[in-house]
Amino acid sequence: MINFQTSPDQYKHWKLKIDGPVAQLSMDVQEDATLVEGYKLKLNSYDLGVDIELSDAIQRLRFEHPEVRAVVVTSLKPRIFCAGANIYMLGTSSHAFKVNFCKFTNETRCAIEDDSRHSGRRYVAALNGTASGGGYELAIACDEIYLVDDGNSAVSLPEVPLLGVLPGTGGLTRLVDKRKVRRDRADVFSTLAEGLKGKRAKDWGLIDDSFPTSKFQESIDARVAQVVNVRSPENSQRPNENEPAQVTNLRHNGIKLNPLEFESSADTRNYKYVSLKLHRDKRYADLTVRGPESDLPTSPNEIQELGDEFWALRAFRELDDSLLHLRVNEPEIGLVCLRTEGSIDNVLAVDKTLVSNRDHWLVRETLLNMARVLRRLDLTAKSFFAIIEPGSCFAGSLLELLLASDRSYMLTDSDQKIAIAASELNAGALPMSNGLTRLQSRFLAEPEKVDEVLAHEHLFDTEGAEEAGLVTFAPDDLDWEDEIRLAIEERTSLSPDALTGMEASLRFAGPETMDTKIYGRLTAWQNWIFQRPNAVGPQGALTNYGKPTQAQFDYKRT
Amino acid sequence: MINFQTSPDQYKHWKLKIDGPVAQLSMDVQEDATLVEGYKLKLNSYDLGVDIELSDAIQRLRFEHPEVRAVVVTSLKPRIFCAGANIYMLGTSSHAFKVNFCKFTNETRCAIEDDSRHSGRRYVAALNGTASGGGYELAIACDEIYLVDDGNSAVSLPEVPLLGVLPGTGGLTRLVDKRKVRRDRADVFSTLAEGLKGKRAKDWGLIDDSFPTSKFQESIDARVAQVVNVRSPENSQRPNENEPAQVTNLRHNGIKLNPLEFESSADTRNYKYVSLKLHRDKRYADLTVRGPESDLPTSPNEIQELGDEFWALRAFRELDDSLLHLRVNEPEIGLVCLRTEGSIDNVLAVDKTLVSNRDHWLVRETLLNMARVLRRLDLTAKSFFAIIEPGSCFAGSLLELLLASDRSYMLTDSDQKIAIAASELNAGALPMSNGLTRLQSRFLAEPEKVDEVLAHEHLFDTEGAEEAGLVTFAPDDLDWEDEIRLAIEERTSLSPDALTGMEASLRFAGPETMDTKIYGRLTAWQNWIFQRPNAVGPQGALTNYGKPTQAQFDYKRT
Repeated sequence: MINFQTSPDQYKHWKLKIDGPVAQLSMDVQEDATLVEGYKLKLNSYDLGVDIELSDAIQRLRFEHPEVRAVVVTSLKPRIFCAGANIYMLGTSSHAFKVNFCKFTNETRCAIEDDSRHSGRRYVAALNGTASGGGYELAIACDEIYLVDDGNSAVSLPEVPLLGVLPGTGGLTRLVDKRKVRRDRADVFSTLAEGLKGKRAKDWGLIDDSFPTSKFQESIDARVAQVVNVRSPENSQRPNENEPAQVTNLRHNGIKLNPLEFESSADTRNYKYVSLKLHRDKRYADLTVRGPESDLPTSPNEIQELGDEFWALRAFRELDDSLLHLRVNEPEIGLVCLRTEGSIDNVLAVDKTLVSNRDHWLVRETLLNMARVLRRLDLTAKSFFAIIEPGSCFAGSLLELLLASDRSYMLTDSDQKIAIAASELNAGALPMSNGLTRLQSRFLAEPEKVDEVLAHEHLFDTEGAEEAGLVTFAPDDLDWEDEIRLAIEERTSLSPDALTGMEASLRFAGPETMDTKIYGRLTAWQNWIFQRPNAVGPQGALTNYGKPTQAQFDYKRT
Repeated sequence: MINFQTSPDQYKHWKLKIDGPVAQLSMDVQEDATLVEGYKLKLNSYDLGVDIELSDAIQRLRFEHPEVRAVVVTSLKPRIFCAGANIYMLGTSSHAFKVNFCKFTNETRCAIEDDSRHSGRRYVAALNGTASGGGYELAIACDEIYLVDDGNSAVSLPEVPLLGVLPGTGGLTRLVDKRKVRRDRADVFSTLAEGLKGKRAKDWGLIDDSFPTSKFQESIDARVAQVVNVRSPENSQRPNENEPAQVTNLRHNGIKLNPLEFESSADTRNYKYVSLKLHRDKRYADLTVRGPESDLPTSPNEIQELGDEFWALRAFRELDDSLLHLRVNEPEIGLVCLRTEGSIDNVLAVDKTLVSNRDHWLVRETLLNMARVLRRLDLTAKSFFAIIEPGSCFAGSLLELLLASDRSYMLTDSDQKIAIAASELNAGALPMSNGLTRLQSRFLAEPEKVDEVLAHEHLFDTEGAEEAGLVTFAPDDLDWEDEIRLAIEERTSLSPDALTGMEASLRFAGPETMDTKIYGRLTAWQNWIFQRPNAVGPQGALTNYGKPTQAQFDYKRT
């Protein structure tokens, strides 16, 4: 079983060093500390275990070290920054694992960009050696890229020429969409196994600059000092629209992210606010999120005092861990029934506190984390049904669970109180990858309905929810059990691959962004290529990499 | 060998009837008139041969019948509109054929939408019976959908529940992006084999209305009369921004699209303006487009007189046919070297005439056709290198060939005149699927370069072209032969699947549109699913469709 929880004292592959406003995140992969057997992590190549640590480090920077303004991403290995995803690991992994591995590494890169965009930390990739494949993809997830000019070190995306697959962590999309490299140059670069260095890499926009070995460290230091200076509190009087006003972070101490405790059995996993119950024979799971208790914080100070015990942070961290667990450790679970339990009033009270204090660094980080977790849900290749029954609390932040679901079922029962509610958090704080709110994505045909839902001051009962267009079906109590049972049976009987492709298409109506292009377009192509005999067949390039045998292609173009 | 040329007198599956401003395009598929053996086209199901006729009919409507304002798409079979792509055909086709088949049907649907958007013909789907799968996808490519209410006829997308694949002709994307069906309803609809009819289909936005059998024909007639009336010349005084001002069409006669003649041998195919030369052992082809001769038309009347002999129409029709031929009949050709021959001045003269007369219906249709052909090139799964040598004429409309290429090589030779040139046609008349011009897509990082290129009044010599960012490489005459040879050898040695995915990612930087979502996101997912054992394995759903055996799925979610 793969465990997604870690902490700096357990890191095997990364060193996180904080020095005032500067963090140094250094890759130093231990060859033998692999997630599973069968390969060695040479040359700072990585497997999922390495990326879980990176993901954890970025999360901790945000919550534990809000004072950090610049993050230098570098390597402790001489002459090599990072060789990318380990090829032998990929070669020996199942198709499903490869796809989930790429998805997680993509989410980690997007988390870096989310931190840069919304929390104003600037990521500086200090490439003290060659960055190839996923190594370069990590670099282009950063804001700035500097490459040592030692006559040898290069940046490269050698996947196409060497392995017959695509750079799987957003590389191609970021080349042309983020760094806006001219498409013909991107074409040349992506087919050049040895990559590019120095002047041409800079001229083509692949890196921001290169410095000779003797001046590399001081040049990086100088650039970082500049970044930190611009973003220091003394300079906060000089507003600059390119620099998010996150300087308030500096005046606050971080909070500690403690391990998430849970009890588990073969078919259950119970955190404080999240419970998973697996129905393995029926291939579905119940995932229940419990709302906050009373005695809620109302000020930033109280929230800071609560630290990671604050419901809005803890419940969503638990939800995140549950989703990752389901994705990687429970592949046969095809459907997740999302349920909630608790007081709608309490959820709305938390939302209100979050909204009124959203300029406070910890509240902002808490909201940004909620948004990321909900995007992780959108991007999870399982069906989601929201089940709304008496005692549930699909309100505000938790209404997003309903809106993120592929369908929703709300009981119609005149004898019991059943309700859902919107809050200001449904109006923009928790955007999808396509840049829209989930309400906007839902009501593309009738955009006025978004405002109607947000303006509705009371709870929606079942009839009201149906009329407002918020739920798919509203069976009455006589039909309820049967209808839910049949819906589950029917869903879990369908081809899991067709469902994955269908959901990926229907969930993201409307505009596309770099993120959705990475998860939709690029991921889908990569999934396809990861299955092709030219990559993974006995004579495929991925299969034969590093062997004396050479790949033999079927040259038919598809 | 598959032939993409046809004409109404040869149609086996469609009837095209013109009655003044109304065309009726009726599907009446002949079961036994299949493209290859092994299946029967029952229930108006279709194979590529049926779609080639549809594509031809739409093209002829535009050029031969500009007076038509409304196109009724219907069926001559009782109680069935169209059952979609033939499943036994899909089940017995190679993966590459399936993918190319879907791409062509998608292009045909996009051509309907292009006609509606730019030429103001309104497509009315008159579903006199059930429209399932590709049948319903044809309907949602139309502007309006009316379904007979006979207690039985439904619209459906049964691919996911019945076949374990996706609707492959843009269905899912058009559901949520064009018709803006709520995503949870789209989810229900796309998993419901029997589909929906009547009131619910209308309430959910799947159809625009339904009429009882007894009133179906008169209701369609009434609606069509309304459409025609709004778009008639008498009403042209009432400008309406929702109604393109195409009424001038009515005052003109169409021109005849004659068969494209060509001479071919095993390795060549020579049309009047386009030549293909295949180097099969090296897996690449030279595709040469010849520019126009002198004695060019300068007025709409002269153009109308020339009819399909006009260079701008004929050359691009020949290019279109060549691309389709390469895609389907020459799968092992992985690289196409695009070359041009002729007079830059003549190309620019034609461009000038087109630009100054773009309000004339035939000029407009000629430009829209050029744009579609160039988009077909963008979407062709082959590598394209532009080769610019003395005597070439990459100018204006033909400069788009260079800009559409994955790379370009321009000879540096001080002894010979080698040049390229821009024209006003590079400024917007020939957009890519992403809505940008190819110059805009090229210069996302430096948008000011678009204007610089367009403002440049002279030809670009090699040095100027390189400086302007228009070419990738400019080898001198000593290196030229070797460099081109090596570039070709290197490109054709790479995995064709990885190249397809890479090119699909790099060619479409910037915004996404419904079209790019269909070709990028949806197509890529479908390609993946078309390879999965759950669809095409011995126990897959597509393989077992219609057999006594049932599909057995591996339920692991990926």
